[in-house]
Amino acid sequence: MGRVKEWLMKRRFLEIFCMLLAGVCFLSTGATAGKTYIWHDKDGNVHFSDRPPHPDQAGSDIQERQFKEAPRPEAKPITISDNPIEHAIQSTFRLTNRKGGGSGFFINDKGLAITAKHVVQGATYSMKAELAGQKKKYSVKIIKKSRKNDLALIRVMIKKPTPYLEIRKTDTLIRGEPVWVVGNPLLAFKETVTSGIFSRIFPEKDFKKELKVKAPYKGDWIQFSASVIGGNSGGPVVDKDGRLIGVVSLGFKAYNAINLAVPASYIEKNFATQLK
Amino acid sequence: MGRVKEWLMKRRFLEIFCMLLAGVCFLSTGATAGKTYIWHDKDGNVHFSDRPPHPDQAGSDIQERQFKEAPRPEAKPITISDNPIEHAIQSTFRLTNRKGGGSGFFINDKGLAITAKHVVQGATYSMKAELAGQKKKYSVKIIKKSRKNDLALIRVMIKKPTPYLEIRKTDTLIRGEPVWVVGNPLLAFKETVTSGIFSRIFPEKDFKKELKVKAPYKGDWIQFSASVIGGNSGGPVVDKDGRLIGVVSLGFKAYNAINLAVPASYIEKNFATQLK
Amino acid sequence: MGRVKEWLMKRRFLEIFCMLLAGVCFLSTGATAGKTYIWHDKDGNVHFSDRPPHPDQAGSDIQERQFKEAPRPEAKPITISDNPIEHAIQSTFRLTNRKGGGSGFFINDKGLAITAKHVVQGATYSMKAELAGQKKKYSVKIIKKSRKNDLALIRVMIKKPTPYLEIRKTDTLIRGEPVWVVGNPLLAFKETVTSGIFSRIFPEKDFKKELKVKAPYKGDWIQFSASVIGGNSGGPVVDKDGRLIGVVSLGFKAYNAINLAVPASYIEKNFATQLK
Repeated sequence: MGRVKEWLMKRRFLEIFCMLLAGVCFLSTGATAGKTYIWHDKDGNVHFSDRPPHPDQAGSDIQERQFKEAPRPEAKPITISDNPIEHAIQSTFRLTNRKGGGSGFFINDKGLAITAKHVVQGATYSMKAELAGQKKKYSVKIIKKSRKNDLALIRVMIKKPTPYLEIRKTDTLIRGEPVWVVGNPLLAFKETVTSGIFSRIFPEKDFKKELKVKAPYKGDWIQFSASVIGGNSGGPVVDKDGRLIGVVSLGFKAYNAINLAVPASYIEKNFATQLK
Repeated sequence: MGRVKEWLMKRRFLEIFCMLLAGVCFLSTGATAGKTYIWHDKDGNVHFSDRPPHPDQAGSDIQERQFKEAPRPEAKPITISDNPIEHAIQSTFRLTNRKGGGSGFFINDKGLAITAKHVVQGATYSMKAELAGQKKKYSVKIIKKSRKNDLALIRVMIKKPTPYLEIRKTDTLIRGEPVWVVGNPLLAFKETVTSGIFSRIFPEKDFKKELKVKAPYKGDWIQFSASVIGGNSGGPVVDKDGRLIGVVSLGFKAYNAINLAVPASYIEKNFATQLK
Repeated sequence: MGRVKEWLMKRRFLEIFCMLLAGVCFLSTGATAGKTYIWHDKDGNVHFSDRPPHPDQAGSDIQERQFKEAPRPEAKPITISDNPIEHAIQSTFRLTNRKGGGSGFFINDKGLAITAKHVVQGATYSMKAELAGQKKKYSVKIIKKSRKNDLALIRVMIKKPTPYLEIRKTDTLIRGEPVWVVGNPLLAFKETVTSGIFSRIFPEKDFKKELKVKAPYKGDWIQFSASVIGGNSGGPVVDKDGRLIGVVSLGFKAYNAINLAVPASYIEKNFATQLK
C-alpha cells in the first residue's frame, strides 16, 4: 500500500521513453478485442482460433473437470467468453477510494468477491468497484477479513449476475506451469494481464529462515514469476483454463520475477460459513 | 531517444554481475542456430521439431490464412525460415547514425520498411540499416513520417529481395495471447528476441484520464508485457505465426511489464497511397 | 558474486510491498506440489495432466530422442518425475559457504555436477550442497575449473544415485523457443523456476565491438530472456524436455531480459577426460 500511495503521487511524472509531440487530429480506430477463442481439447492442448471448437473436439470435457474440482452453488457459470483469459479479465475489477486501491474478483454470480486484506485494511473511505468495460462504479461492502491470511471477502452491490472464477485446488499445481495475472498495475492500467509461471510453494518458515524477516501473514504462499506491482494486490492469478490459483499479495522491490500470492485453497478455509 | 542516448554513453560502464578474468586461449565453437522448425498444425497447435511437418499435418493451411487476412502485392513472401520467429528476426534490422538509433522491419520484398517516427525524427545525420547476419550497412531513405502516430515509412537501399512481415489486423487480437518482440535493446544487443503477452488495447483517453499526462501521439495502443528498452523502438511485435501486431514505441521507466506499440492496422491508415 | 554478497547483507531489509501484521494463529495447510504430469506426445505437443500419458501416446519416443542426442554412461536416467521441469528442479542444488554461493546441477547419477567457475573461484571456505527437498547439506569437492569458460566440474559427496540433466547440443537450439531457469535467486529463494526464451547466440566478439568491455571469458554465449539475479549463477537453463541448454553466468544490472549462459556443449569440450 505504501508503494501504491507513492505511485499515485508520482504517476503524473511517469517518465516515458519518448514524448515528442505529433499532430493533433483525432485518429478514429476500430482497434478492439475481437470475438475469438482459446480452448483446450481432450488431451489438454491449447488452441488459439477465430472459431469455436467443434463439439467433438472440446467443451463438455473441460466443464466437467471444473465442476468436479470446485463445485459451486450455481448450476452453470456465467461465461462471458470462451477465452479463459478474457473470462478472467471480465471477472476482475478495480477497487479504489480517494486514498488508493487495488484489484478484486468475483467468486460467485451474486457479486460475492475476494481481494487482499491489505487493500481494504484501514480504509477510512469506502471503496468502489469498477468492472471491466463499464463506466459505472459500484459500492463495495466488506463481509469478513481473514485473521490469518491476506484475504478479505467482499460484496459488490450489483444486481446483474456477475462472471466469476472457479477455484482450483492448490495441491494440483505443477511446478513450471504457465500462469496469468489480471489486475490494475499502478492502479492506472486497467484490465491488464501479465504472464509467467508457477514457481513453487513458498513455505511460511522461509520468511524467518531464509529472508530473515517476520512472516507478514500465516500459512504458505504461491511463488510465481509473472510481473506485478502496486495496484495488482488482491487480483487473481489464474491457470490456462482461467481457474483461480492464488490472490496477489506480496512482491519484492529488488526483483520482479519473485512474487507471492495467497493460495486459492485458503479462501474456503477462511470463509467456509459465508460461502455456504 | 533520451534514454537511448543516455544508454549509449553509459554502455562502456555496463555493470556485469561477474567480471573475473579467465584464460586467454581462444575456444573455437560450433555454436550456431541450427536448421530446425516451429510450425502449427490445422488445429493451431504449436510444434517444435528438428524436421519439417509432414504435408498432411501443416503448411498450406497456414499460408492460406495469412493471405486471406493480409493480401499483399507480391505473389509469395520471401520465406527465410519455416520458424516464424526466425523469419521475423531476418525481417528486422538495426538503424543507427552517430547520435543513436533503434530498430526497423521490412513490409515488402523491395526494401520498403517501417520504424517509429521518434527514431528518425530530427535525425540530422542520415541513418544506416544493418540486416540480420550481414556486415554491410545499407543507406536509408525516409519516405513519409506520420502526422498522428509514432510511425515512419522508410526505404532501405538494397537491391536483393527482402524478407518481410505480414500485417495482422488489430481487431483479431486475443487478450492474453503470446507475442514476441524483435529488435536491438540498448542498441548493442543485435537480433534479440523477448516474449510476453498481448495485454489489451490501451485507449488514447487513458493518458489523460489515468496517467495524468498528455498523450504523446494520437490513437490507441497495443499494450504488451514483453520487456523492451531503448533501442527496441521501431521494432516489430509479432504473433506466433510471425505476423506483425504492432510497432514498439513507448515504455515506462517504473515498470517493464507494461509497454506500448502502435497498432499494425495504423500502418495502412497512414501510408495507404505509398503502399499501393 | 559482488552482487550476491551485497544481497546477502541486505536481505534482512528486503522491502516488501505490504507488511501489515495479521493474526498469530498457525494455519495448517495441505498446500504442496502434487503428483502431476507434463509430457509430450509423438508430435511434440505439450500436455499438462493429473494422470500419466497412455503408453500409446508418449514415453519411449521422447527417451529415445534424448539418448540419441546425448548418450551417457548410464543405461537409464534416474527419473524423479515425469514432469521435465520438476525433474530439472530435483537435479539442481544450492551451493553455499559462509561468504556466499550460487547454484549447481548434476550431470550423472554418481554426484558429478556443474556450476559456474565464478561461484567456486577463490572460495576460501569449502562449499556445501543443499539438494531439493532435503535438509542435509553435502560436502562438495572441486574437480576441475575451466581455463576458458565460466564452468567448474564438481562432485557432491553423496552415496545415493542422483537425478541429473541430459545435455542438449547447442547447435540444435531454435531462436524464440521457450526455456526455464532453475536456481536460488538471491540465494534465499530455493528451488525457484523462471521462464523466458532462447534469444540468440551472443558472439564473444560483441563484448568488445558492441558493449565496449573486455570479454570476461572465452567463447560464445547463450543469450536468454528469463529473469535471473545473484544466486542463480551456476544453475541450469533447460528446454521444455528438461534438457540442459546452458549454465547461468552473466547478467546486466540495467536490464533483466538479457542474460548470458555458458553453452551446454562447452561442458564436454572442457571436461572430456573427466567425463569418460
